[in-house]
Amino acid sequence: MSEYLSDHVHLSDDGTAVIILDQTQLPNRTEYLTLRTAKQMFDAIQSLQVRGAPCIGICAAYDLYVLAQRIPDTASAEEFMSKLNEQANYLASSRPTAVNLRWALDRMLDTAKAHAADTDRLTALHSECIAIHKEDIAMCRSIAEYGLSLISDGDGILTHCNAGPLATSRYGTALGPLFLGKERGMNFHVFSDETRPLLQGARLTSYELSRGGIDVTLICDNMASIVMKNGWVQACFVGCDRVAANGDAANKIGTSGVAILAKHYGIPFYVLGPTSTIDISCATGDDIPIELRDPNEIREKFYAEPMALPEVNCYNPAFDVTDHTLISGIITEYGICRAPYTESLRAVFDRKNAGIPFETPEKGGN
Amino acid sequence: MSEYLSDHVHLSDDGTAVIILDQTQLPNRTEYLTLRTAKQMFDAIQSLQVRGAPCIGICAAYDLYVLAQRIPDTASAEEFMSKLNEQANYLASSRPTAVNLRWALDRMLDTAKAHAADTDRLTALHSECIAIHKEDIAMCRSIAEYGLSLISDGDGILTHCNAGPLATSRYGTALGPLFLGKERGMNFHVFSDETRPLLQGARLTSYELSRGGIDVTLICDNMASIVMKNGWVQACFVGCDRVAANGDAANKIGTSGVAILAKHYGIPFYVLGPTSTIDISCATGDDIPIELRDPNEIREKFYAEPMALPEVNCYNPAFDVTDHTLISGIITEYGICRAPYTESLRAVFDRKNAGIPFETPEKGGN
Repeated sequence: MSEYLSDHVHLSDDGTAVIILDQTQLPNRTEYLTLRTAKQMFDAIQSLQVRGAPCIGICAAYDLYVLAQRIPDTASAEEFMSKLNEQANYLASSRPTAVNLRWALDRMLDTAKAHAADTDRLTALHSECIAIHKEDIAMCRSIAEYGLSLISDGDGILTHCNAGPLATSRYGTALGPLFLGKERGMNFHVFSDETRPLLQGARLTSYELSRGGIDVTLICDNMASIVMKNGWVQACFVGCDRVAANGDAANKIGTSGVAILAKHYGIPFYVLGPTSTIDISCATGDDIPIELRDPNEIREKFYAEPMALPEVNCYNPAFDVTDHTLISGIITEYGICRAPYTESLRAVFDRKNAGIPFETPEKGGN
Repeated sequence: MSEYLSDHVHLSDDGTAVIILDQTQLPNRTEYLTLRTAKQMFDAIQSLQVRGAPCIGICAAYDLYVLAQRIPDTASAEEFMSKLNEQANYLASSRPTAVNLRWALDRMLDTAKAHAADTDRLTALHSECIAIHKEDIAMCRSIAEYGLSLISDGDGILTHCNAGPLATSRYGTALGPLFLGKERGMNFHVFSDETRPLLQGARLTSYELSRGGIDVTLICDNMASIVMKNGWVQACFVGCDRVAANGDAANKIGTSGVAILAKHYGIPFYVLGPTSTIDISCATGDDIPIELRDPNEIREKFYAEPMALPEVNCYNPAFDVTDHTLISGIITEYGICRAPYTESLRAVFDRKNAGIPFETPEKGGN
């Protein structure tokens, strides 16, 4: 895997800024942005210069450390926490659907609270954001192993949106098994939905896979049905932005349609994501807020000229919820959860809350 | 309805050229093209400057009349037919999936053959191409009436690609009931799939409906699932490029996916098209050839800059086949065919072949 793919988000050398690869410039340009203020990070997340549920969590954690450095050393613990909470709430409001963002910020706030009165409170925050990043790498690796245990050399895999290295760190979630399998000499044939309107499948997934030497065929979203009907797909792998306690999974708009097609054609449909994506406080998918975005992303964005009249209404939800009954398995760093998800997801949470570390299976075992 | 929408394809005043509205320029520019040679018509059809299964049939018929005028008056009946057959075969090869193109050309050839030895053979061809156009208008009107009988004022209707006036003449097929209902004071809420990669839904359907004063919401193809789940869709109306004897229907890529979603959500899915679209010689959808198009329509077309690396493979089928088991009804000018389609479509053909004229129901009756 290209080195930069594992390092597309990091702290600057002096630790006073977050450096990110500007994903809106891919695949045409590789440009990095240096973000110092909360507003800059908010805008980068909202404009999708950085995206992917796990990745924006990592970014927000790094940014909270950067912002904490701007709070005077003389600030009291209360003043420190008040300012930090304010910044965290602002960052969390940049995108409402993915839960990892709030999860990472809360982890940073918990650390801050525990050390707010310490003179080395910044050191604690530095360690915490680095830990969040490192843990994401380890979680992706574990997810990749579990996912790889579900497929065979030569399989066709359909994916939607981007849940690869650019959405996370290192292996990615949905693409993790494919990168890991490639390292072990396996070959998969990946069908990447282009994923309108923002084309993360075209711009990011086909880019990552192609650069990683993995066979990839780019299709329009509406071609998933014929590709499945042709018998070219043995499994669907998608990421997730928030999973409810019953297994309902919010992911990029169109994911639920892929799941319905997969069910129709008898193809297993897997959701891959770290436990930080699971929101046990959401009973069902109905409780997950769905972000609505600018209609011009459909009418105009990316085009040399508009593709619809300006007066034409557009409905532009960024996500949809895939019903748990359509999901064959939810792959976390703790293993493969199967229906009934209310029980299997709860079991994972109990292990996590008890401080039991996840075990990465070796060679794709479960 | 705007006048030009009913007249977007016609003969030039002197009858020596076919005038078409260049649909690739919509919605930004209204430009007409004057086509005189077979090559010009071939290119216009292949590049989708004119498209829609019924419409390219009308165009090809007009063009064959235009081309016939270039054959010397001194040509023998055999020479005349030989030349005309050659031109017809060339035009028919411009797009392989839609059957109306071949059907219209064959009608012109039959007329030519019957009059090849006459001095007024050109007059007969002129009458025939005008008749094909006029009949299409009448068929669309009848289809619109039958389609309207299936829906109620206030319904939400989802459509894919463009099967409106621009794809036919006057009312269109899939959009016909909506235009007709509008004339009668009914209001529908239409969801138009943008229909990648060539965006006929965005560029043409949302344009036609918006200009026609019909409430339309443009969505990306992958949003059909959430729109249905939201309860906003009471029926799906799509056109067709070729219907096999068993009811399997080829239509714009992605149509089969819409049908699978509709079935999942319990929404009726209707295919609308004239009997010229039914190919009783095709036993099933497996016998319908599917046109594969340029990968750059996915990677580059319409964009200010490419959305995928040039080395990324793309699969770009122009059509897919919707299994007859997913279709709630096939609406022709002769009425509404229901399963088993092998019988109901055959019955329509028997009436048509017996020369029984179709009857347009009044006020949406059946």
